[in-house]
Amino acid sequence: MGKHRNAPIITSPAAMRAAARRGEWHGSTGGQCSAYQQANLVILPKEAAVEFAAFCTRNPKPCPLIEITPPGDPEPARSAPGADLRTDLPGYRVYRGGELVEQRSEIRDLWRDDLVAFLLGCSLTFEHALIDAGVGVRNVEGGTLVPMFVSNLACRPAGRFHGPMVVTMRPIPEAQVQLAGELTARYPHAHGAPLHAGSPQAIGIADLGRPDYGDPVAIHPGEVPVFWACGVTPQAVALEARPELMITHEPGIMFLTDLPREGDSRS
Amino acid sequence: MGKHRNAPIITSPAAMRAAARRGEWHGSTGGQCSAYQQANLVILPKEAAVEFAAFCTRNPKPCPLIEITPPGDPEPARSAPGADLRTDLPGYRVYRGGELVEQRSEIRDLWRDDLVAFLLGCSLTFEHALIDAGVGVRNVEGGTLVPMFVSNLACRPAGRFHGPMVVTMRPIPEAQVQLAGELTARYPHAHGAPLHAGSPQAIGIADLGRPDYGDPVAIHPGEVPVFWACGVTPQAVALEARPELMITHEPGIMFLTDLPREGDSRS
Repeated sequence: MGKHRNAPIITSPAAMRAAARRGEWHGSTGGQCSAYQQANLVILPKEAAVEFAAFCTRNPKPCPLIEITPPGDPEPARSAPGADLRTDLPGYRVYRGGELVEQRSEIRDLWRDDLVAFLLGCSLTFEHALIDAGVGVRNVEGGTLVPMFVSNLACRPAGRFHGPMVVTMRPIPEAQVQLAGELTARYPHAHGAPLHAGSPQAIGIADLGRPDYGDPVAIHPGEVPVFWACGVTPQAVALEARPELMITHEPGIMFLTDLPREGDSRS
Repeated sequence: MGKHRNAPIITSPAAMRAAARRGEWHGSTGGQCSAYQQANLVILPKEAAVEFAAFCTRNPKPCPLIEITPPGDPEPARSAPGADLRTDLPGYRVYRGGELVEQRSEIRDLWRDDLVAFLLGCSLTFEHALIDAGVGVRNVEGGTLVPMFVSNLACRPAGRFHGPMVVTMRPIPEAQVQLAGELTARYPHAHGAPLHAGSPQAIGIADLGRPDYGDPVAIHPGEVPVFWACGVTPQAVALEARPELMITHEPGIMFLTDLPREGDSRS
């Protein structure tokens, strides 16, 4: 339940990536570069990558594809030209056979000609829009990681990849639930409209006080728990398939793209 | 410049696919199933598929990904559950080493465990919206294929895949150009807003009377040629890479999905 203290606000994704590359950036990306899209990173060997791409297209709410890189190419040429996905995030997690084996600040020496990077949309993108519209986001206010839960909503399988959807939860005042839904629907590249509002039990969540990932938040009287599809889903599903190698970002510390926040990732 | 006569209007994609499977459907899908999304089909061996997926994510205007199937799986489980991509289109083109070698009504005996199908958005989807809003679409009125041109706008390369963007052109009355832009912007899953309106020379097109694909249309006084990204782009680019095997739909005769026309493909 640790607090994630942020460094001073940085507004340029390129400056953020350069700081990460120099080893001078360590905090969460929540609240940073609010005009731009943030992205989840999943790196897999080519052997598993087509099936994973299929999984993402079959589950566009939890897995909105921003960019796939060709095998061996670490530059996301559309979403951040000139960036290097091996160095431009502050932290990486390395999994082998589904087990976390290492956490590191860059992955240059692990890079291979057959590795494929997936950049997937992230709800940190739409949190800025909620805040701008006067909808409080408790995890941002508290400087904690958004609480995430494994729901009983099944993803559509694709080959070896299958499993339940992971969701984020934000408490929203009852009078603002509709507004929050309408605002986030404008961000299909960042999970879009909520999947569910109200009873956590209805989607298989027993206890909102005990998230599966992230930190719990208080729910005040008159607030409704609202649930969005979460970009941890593809990571959780990929891990279950125990790929020989998988590399991801550290939770809450995303890749900063140059794509404008409002822009559909396909425009 | 042949006319493409349509059969009586069919409104159910499932009925359309079943008719194709029985060999009873041969016409264009233009104007059919207007409430649903139509899709381009590109089938490639797994070996080339990751790079092609990367190309599509890097060029979302011409190549909006609706669904990728896992290798060997001919069912588009999200966009048309129960459908079979080997039989449910009325016509297929088979290319080997970049050369058209065969046209057939089904591809069951060509199917392999390593084949991956890509369904990509199509402008036939938004033409219905233009017509509903009172914007005439000349190629629909005339029952011809929309005129398509190879522009000088470059796609963002991904590995072996690179080349110019193919665009469609529709003449729009000057007073409706803005409306046509706003309407189609709501369809990012179907190429979205126009790329260009006005001088064809500005995007490298010498003669609107001689399209590279499809049929020419008249441009009346007071009309502006408006250009949209075209789903023929990924096929043209893939062919240039001379893949061992590539299978596509017949031009103008698309795959009919069960996805609602208005729905972003990721919602």
